[in-house]
Amino acid sequence: MGEDDKLLRGRFTEGTDEGVERFTASVAFDRRLYRYDIRGSVAHAEMLAAAGVLTEAECRAIVDGLRGIERDIEAGDFEWSTALEDVHMNIEARLTERIGEVGKKLHTGRSRNDQVATDLRLYLRDEIDAVVTLLGEIMTRLVDAAERHAADPMPGFTHLQTAQPVTLGHHLLAWFEMAHRDRARFSDCRKRLNVSPLGAAALAGTTFPIDRSATAAALGFDGVAANSLDAVSDRDFAIEFCAAAALTAVHLSRWCEELVIWTSQQFAFVELPDAFCTGSSIMPQKKNPDVPELVRGKAGRVVGHLVGLLVLMKGQALAYNRDNQEDKEPVFDTAATLRGCLAAMRDIVGAMRPDTAAMRRAAELGYATATDLADYLVRKGLPFRDAYDTVGRVVRHAQEAGVALADLPLDELRRVHDAIGEDVYDAVSLDGSLAARDQVGGTAPARVRAAAAEARARI
Amino acid sequence: MGEDDKLLRGRFTEGTDEGVERFTASVAFDRRLYRYDIRGSVAHAEMLAAAGVLTEAECRAIVDGLRGIERDIEAGDFEWSTALEDVHMNIEARLTERIGEVGKKLHTGRSRNDQVATDLRLYLRDEIDAVVTLLGEIMTRLVDAAERHAADPMPGFTHLQTAQPVTLGHHLLAWFEMAHRDRARFSDCRKRLNVSPLGAAALAGTTFPIDRSATAAALGFDGVAANSLDAVSDRDFAIEFCAAAALTAVHLSRWCEELVIWTSQQFAFVELPDAFCTGSSIMPQKKNPDVPELVRGKAGRVVGHLVGLLVLMKGQALAYNRDNQEDKEPVFDTAATLRGCLAAMRDIVGAMRPDTAAMRRAAELGYATATDLADYLVRKGLPFRDAYDTVGRVVRHAQEAGVALADLPLDELRRVHDAIGEDVYDAVSLDGSLAARDQVGGTAPARVRAAAAEARARI
Amino acid sequence: MGEDDKLLRGRFTEGTDEGVERFTASVAFDRRLYRYDIRGSVAHAEMLAAAGVLTEAECRAIVDGLRGIERDIEAGDFEWSTALEDVHMNIEARLTERIGEVGKKLHTGRSRNDQVATDLRLYLRDEIDAVVTLLGEIMTRLVDAAERHAADPMPGFTHLQTAQPVTLGHHLLAWFEMAHRDRARFSDCRKRLNVSPLGAAALAGTTFPIDRSATAAALGFDGVAANSLDAVSDRDFAIEFCAAAALTAVHLSRWCEELVIWTSQQFAFVELPDAFCTGSSIMPQKKNPDVPELVRGKAGRVVGHLVGLLVLMKGQALAYNRDNQEDKEPVFDTAATLRGCLAAMRDIVGAMRPDTAAMRRAAELGYATATDLADYLVRKGLPFRDAYDTVGRVVRHAQEAGVALADLPLDELRRVHDAIGEDVYDAVSLDGSLAARDQVGGTAPARVRAAAAEARARI
Amino acid sequence: MGEDDKLLRGRFTEGTDEGVERFTASVAFDRRLYRYDIRGSVAHAEMLAAAGVLTEAECRAIVDGLRGIERDIEAGDFEWSTALEDVHMNIEARLTERIGEVGKKLHTGRSRNDQVATDLRLYLRDEIDAVVTLLGEIMTRLVDAAERHAADPMPGFTHLQTAQPVTLGHHLLAWFEMAHRDRARFSDCRKRLNVSPLGAAALAGTTFPIDRSATAAALGFDGVAANSLDAVSDRDFAIEFCAAAALTAVHLSRWCEELVIWTSQQFAFVELPDAFCTGSSIMPQKKNPDVPELVRGKAGRVVGHLVGLLVLMKGQALAYNRDNQEDKEPVFDTAATLRGCLAAMRDIVGAMRPDTAAMRRAAELGYATATDLADYLVRKGLPFRDAYDTVGRVVRHAQEAGVALADLPLDELRRVHDAIGEDVYDAVSLDGSLAARDQVGGTAPARVRAAAAEARARI
Repeated sequence: MGEDDKLLRGRFTEGTDEGVERFTASVAFDRRLYRYDIRGSVAHAEMLAAAGVLTEAECRAIVDGLRGIERDIEAGDFEWSTALEDVHMNIEARLTERIGEVGKKLHTGRSRNDQVATDLRLYLRDEIDAVVTLLGEIMTRLVDAAERHAADPMPGFTHLQTAQPVTLGHHLLAWFEMAHRDRARFSDCRKRLNVSPLGAAALAGTTFPIDRSATAAALGFDGVAANSLDAVSDRDFAIEFCAAAALTAVHLSRWCEELVIWTSQQFAFVELPDAFCTGSSIMPQKKNPDVPELVRGKAGRVVGHLVGLLVLMKGQALAYNRDNQEDKEPVFDTAATLRGCLAAMRDIVGAMRPDTAAMRRAAELGYATATDLADYLVRKGLPFRDAYDTVGRVVRHAQEAGVALADLPLDELRRVHDAIGEDVYDAVSLDGSLAARDQVGGTAPARVRAAAAEARARI
Repeated sequence: MGEDDKLLRGRFTEGTDEGVERFTASVAFDRRLYRYDIRGSVAHAEMLAAAGVLTEAECRAIVDGLRGIERDIEAGDFEWSTALEDVHMNIEARLTERIGEVGKKLHTGRSRNDQVATDLRLYLRDEIDAVVTLLGEIMTRLVDAAERHAADPMPGFTHLQTAQPVTLGHHLLAWFEMAHRDRARFSDCRKRLNVSPLGAAALAGTTFPIDRSATAAALGFDGVAANSLDAVSDRDFAIEFCAAAALTAVHLSRWCEELVIWTSQQFAFVELPDAFCTGSSIMPQKKNPDVPELVRGKAGRVVGHLVGLLVLMKGQALAYNRDNQEDKEPVFDTAATLRGCLAAMRDIVGAMRPDTAAMRRAAELGYATATDLADYLVRKGLPFRDAYDTVGRVVRHAQEAGVALADLPLDELRRVHDAIGEDVYDAVSLDGSLAARDQVGGTAPARVRAAAAEARARI
Repeated sequence: MGEDDKLLRGRFTEGTDEGVERFTASVAFDRRLYRYDIRGSVAHAEMLAAAGVLTEAECRAIVDGLRGIERDIEAGDFEWSTALEDVHMNIEARLTERIGEVGKKLHTGRSRNDQVATDLRLYLRDEIDAVVTLLGEIMTRLVDAAERHAADPMPGFTHLQTAQPVTLGHHLLAWFEMAHRDRARFSDCRKRLNVSPLGAAALAGTTFPIDRSATAAALGFDGVAANSLDAVSDRDFAIEFCAAAALTAVHLSRWCEELVIWTSQQFAFVELPDAFCTGSSIMPQKKNPDVPELVRGKAGRVVGHLVGLLVLMKGQALAYNRDNQEDKEPVFDTAATLRGCLAAMRDIVGAMRPDTAAMRRAAELGYATATDLADYLVRKGLPFRDAYDTVGRVVRHAQEAGVALADLPLDELRRVHDAIGEDVYDAVSLDGSLAARDQVGGTAPARVRAAAAEARARI
Repeated sequence: MGEDDKLLRGRFTEGTDEGVERFTASVAFDRRLYRYDIRGSVAHAEMLAAAGVLTEAECRAIVDGLRGIERDIEAGDFEWSTALEDVHMNIEARLTERIGEVGKKLHTGRSRNDQVATDLRLYLRDEIDAVVTLLGEIMTRLVDAAERHAADPMPGFTHLQTAQPVTLGHHLLAWFEMAHRDRARFSDCRKRLNVSPLGAAALAGTTFPIDRSATAAALGFDGVAANSLDAVSDRDFAIEFCAAAALTAVHLSRWCEELVIWTSQQFAFVELPDAFCTGSSIMPQKKNPDVPELVRGKAGRVVGHLVGLLVLMKGQALAYNRDNQEDKEPVFDTAATLRGCLAAMRDIVGAMRPDTAAMRRAAELGYATATDLADYLVRKGLPFRDAYDTVGRVVRHAQEAGVALADLPLDELRRVHDAIGEDVYDAVSLDGSLAARDQVGGTAPARVRAAAAEARARI
């Protein structure tokens, strides 16, 4: 609050220290809420008119004034003042400059405490909607790619060791599941967010005959916050948003870790278009998977913001405290970061070029079908645990001989167990192994195609 | 895996180093999942029998064997072996000891990867149910107390400065709102958690004709996980649980901060029964609010566990990696901590003794009804911003005179604005101020009673 | 990297996607390193000249060109290009525009990897020096205030319950100790930070005959980083800085919590000048301790940034990865936030106005000298544990009677223990209690004065 | 505090609720401090005797009693009681049982607040010493391995893409640098930790003529804490320890990420002995790098504990609050986890078997010496930026032709630049490239050997 303004307010005898003014002002970052602030003020003014607190003419003047201010801001013709602290006071002060005394009536029956809570909820609701859309787009791209690669084998890894063959389509549908849960989490968050704090005023409600349902409806809220103290001090929606974002960001970090490994010379499973890579300032041969690396790294900042908000709220007595001003920057940056990462991943999923031949070759290594041989022995009558041990010895023998399972001659295999027949070579072949995993959620190409179809229906 | 067991498995030529065995074994903590592990194994065996993979007699032997093991564990007659790594191998090995060769057939068509994911989900589902119940109990206690104190005034604080009068009941209903959102968050988490990973096997599904829906139904799951790679590597449910727990714990830290402040000699708003306090080892007069302090402090460990899990999963390539073994201890401790804190708070809410007279006296201080005077002036025709400034000067004057607003003589007030009448004293009285905040969510005693009734219906 | 530039670099066949360019470019934030970047380039060029890689004339042209660019940037006459990715390429490209072909020689024997590591260390070294200075200023203010209030009693709290009397000076010296440790932590961090990565080049060193010691000395480093792979991938110094900042911020959050409590109407121990407070938009009487609240809240963001960096580096394979670009924003914001908070606290410590009379009155409450009575009884021969129990009963009796310990008549006290004499009233008086705590680190006014003197010497 | 004990303490009229007792008791975890608690009590008793507060005989009885209790605890003959809350009251109560009334004199001039702070510092000092020793052992193993592999080439990676050749020894010395900084950080932490809080008593010092320097010296502290309020409430040493541990754990996560990647079938750079791996429960061929994976994962819990402690202390008013009881479990688990991880890594560094031939083959791929060709052109007179662009085109040409740089015929290379001569093949050979990086910190084998020798001297 600037010297003059503050002194007008009779309680104070000194102006604010200039350094303090800079330290406490939020207008540098909260002004990005201007559109929501004006929307909230318009709804509030119209409700005050309906309630008889403002005349229709006063309301008209206020609404027109606010619309004009919005246009000025969008045109870059608005001078923001640090002395006026925040987006709310900047707009209110400008309104009074613009339309005169009647502007001073706008703040009747509300407070900055419920106002900022309203603004932030409206902003975050839009961000959630954008995130939900982006997740939907990613899911579509994943299903598209999964269908294309429903039968292309690759090594399935556990512990980054070749475990069993899977198809690339199956792998991409694992990514789909993560994105699908993420979207559901954002939707649940939106549901809890979408109640109106407006009318809670400073903390206790107001003495004016306001109609909270009317402003809630005008602003698209599903209802009104039931308790005024809670309404002005609650930042759960911001934390829940950041928690959903953190989990999403961690998922993206996992996908990107895989892309970074897959684009290494040693794996060479995938190539990223040049458009997603950059070079080195001194190594002329380099083509670096910058975008996946950055997305992976940005998980850090998103998790950090979540922690920042939890620390912020820890141990705060009710109701509103100035600490809460610190909620905005982490939320803004989380939303922007997440949207950037999601858009980047959407584009990468669509653009990456798998080298299916290289993946197939890799799946031939590492005795990926050893489990199939054990399962084969179980079907021939061995208890699973014995079959497992037997195959372990076969694998050791094959490793020492430097051959694949499918290259062991039948008579050698028969020495392991005399029930082994020619059909064993089907069981331990790459495509035989894949086709056999034909249960719900399994990697058989037919299952993957079915799963992709169902996934598409779930988008 | 112990020397002998490992050597049986032909792939390895050396036993596990003893220090490594201790470092990697999880049985010391995952054995607490034994009940869920056995439940899952029973469902799996019965499904294998229905699918014809086991005979009925084999199934019977396995199920009986597992039940016997469960009884032994509960009786404390089970020797857990670190050499057998984890709860799964301990129980499977004991089963084979107990029922012979047929025990080796149990592990057909599954893997420890889907098994542990199943166990952990079953465990956490129970924990969520317990947490939801506790939150319900707290909500009931809060509504009870809110009804008792629906009309008892206290200072409503913002910035820990007296802001406007509220009632204690209103304040307690703010706590209710937090608990209500918390409960909804746990319910949403349960919904996403309650799908069965069983049958995903190691990562790719299985070649055996298993019926995943059957085991899912037998274990009370709502459905089956749609992708096997995801099913064994997904720990979202653990992270989402910890995120919901962290937010709940932060809420409790806020309530407890208030209790600590309220029980100070300076506030003296509330007394806690001796049963919730302890003394000092050297200061004989001390009665410390230990329970609220501990609950406040425990927010730290819960937030810490959430962070630990996010860091754990960051950048992990699919599918299962041994890192994931680290998911259990934070989840176990989070659940236990949260239940302890919720039970403690439930008891405290029921047992704390507000000093309503002290609260009322405090509400008389700090010019809590200054806003009411401004609102009064607005009703007399001043624009709000002018009314606000006028009252600011009145407050300064009253402060200098050392009197309350209600003690200013009418003629002095009239000098401020000549429309002021006798009715101003109603407006600036404590009870007048409270009664006037009679909008939805406001602090008027009638509103608080109505809100409490609605809150009770929402439990 | 922009289309043209990238295509010049023969390895690539496509330009960078525009969205990708925006997503990956760092110039929007890393340009604040320009001064350090230019300093590093000047040192590098001069070393190259000394080594014979550049001629003296070439070096002169480069250095003059860089100085000109620095002037342009400071005058606001520099157009930053997102297409040129980062501060380094912007400056290098401009240099070549400005001085022609010779500008292309500057990047000989280095890489952006060692360059940015150098820049960031130089930047952070300056920030550490500023933080160390601010901590010194705070320590001075604390010692000044501690001397002023060396004998002014206040309640010493544990569990926010009155425990034993202390002096305000003693309390402020507790703050001093925290600041003193903080400063030492930053100094240790500086020591580890202050080694030069320059010359590590991309990751493996260079084939040119550079002199790393020369650039290190020119830039004020204490030595050179011993391993090139480590030098380009190490971000320990950033994490250690943020860890020191997080602990400092948590300390400030504790001081500010106290200030918020102390400025409440209930405590009223301290008044903050109007210059450090702001009002409410609707409650005309409010004077809120905004600055302490904001400082308290900012602990959240600082802790969050620390976590963000730890998550960022978790599980990164050597050497430099693009993830590391994410190190800058949290470090910049941490440094700026910390400096803002420290400056605010320095000013507050100097400006706050303790109400020593109110503090003294508060210290009379709560049976703060009960321990003194117990100690008195020990000196009369009781074992401490018996004395403790005896005094507990005395306190209960006094509470029921509603009197202070010092108001109990001697004969009543004698009934507790017949060795009690007149001198007991000295023991249980506020000033008697204070004076008796006359050991090193104790609260006796003489000790506090001595401690303040020592503290001043430690600044 | 149990019913009986608490009622003895006259201040209370009710016993502690049983659930509350369980919730608040710390003996289940703090009893591991018994040795330090007893050591502190012995030092305190001997100091009280020297100060004349105890007689020599009383002191003897107390010390003998404490020694007896220590023996009982170590023999497993001590019954810990939850009703007695913590390790301190358990031992004190047992002492009085054992030696009678004189036991009640031990607590003269101290409090549990300074006692537990002393215990925890002594415990952590030992843990730091153990960590420092382990880091030294790791550094020795790293230097040993670096010397063995000083000239063995491998691809140096940035962005996990082949960048330039380095030697394995050089890579391992990068790990050394991290460990070296870690050790320094723990040493700095120890320095700040090693001051004695004993004698601060509850918060304000004591009225007894204690000699704090004497107990400090007896317990091996470097000095006494200068302020009693700070001494009982400071947990900086725990946080700083956890911060150092978190950074160390993140380093280990990076090494382990590399080991996991290097042991993949695709990289196959390293084999881990069977002793450090385990198998799968269903895939008989699997050999999983469990130990590196677990170490990588444990970074999560260590970072989590750091966050937990920061949240714990955030916003705590002075002095001791019960929240602080929550400091112990995270510190205990951090120390145990870190020691386990360090011991595991020490053993792995000694036992891992690099496949130097495979590494050399990998280094031949990916045009790792392209920078060398650019440097060669610079030496022939091209400005670096032009040389860089030229080589980019050469690499693209070679890629399209499917050949390595060294396989391009001289006349083709001459078409790029006519100054190219036969000596270019030395420059672009693996060993030529390595040898040329012969600056301080570079990867030339001679440099690596020298760096290893210096590193050994720094251990």
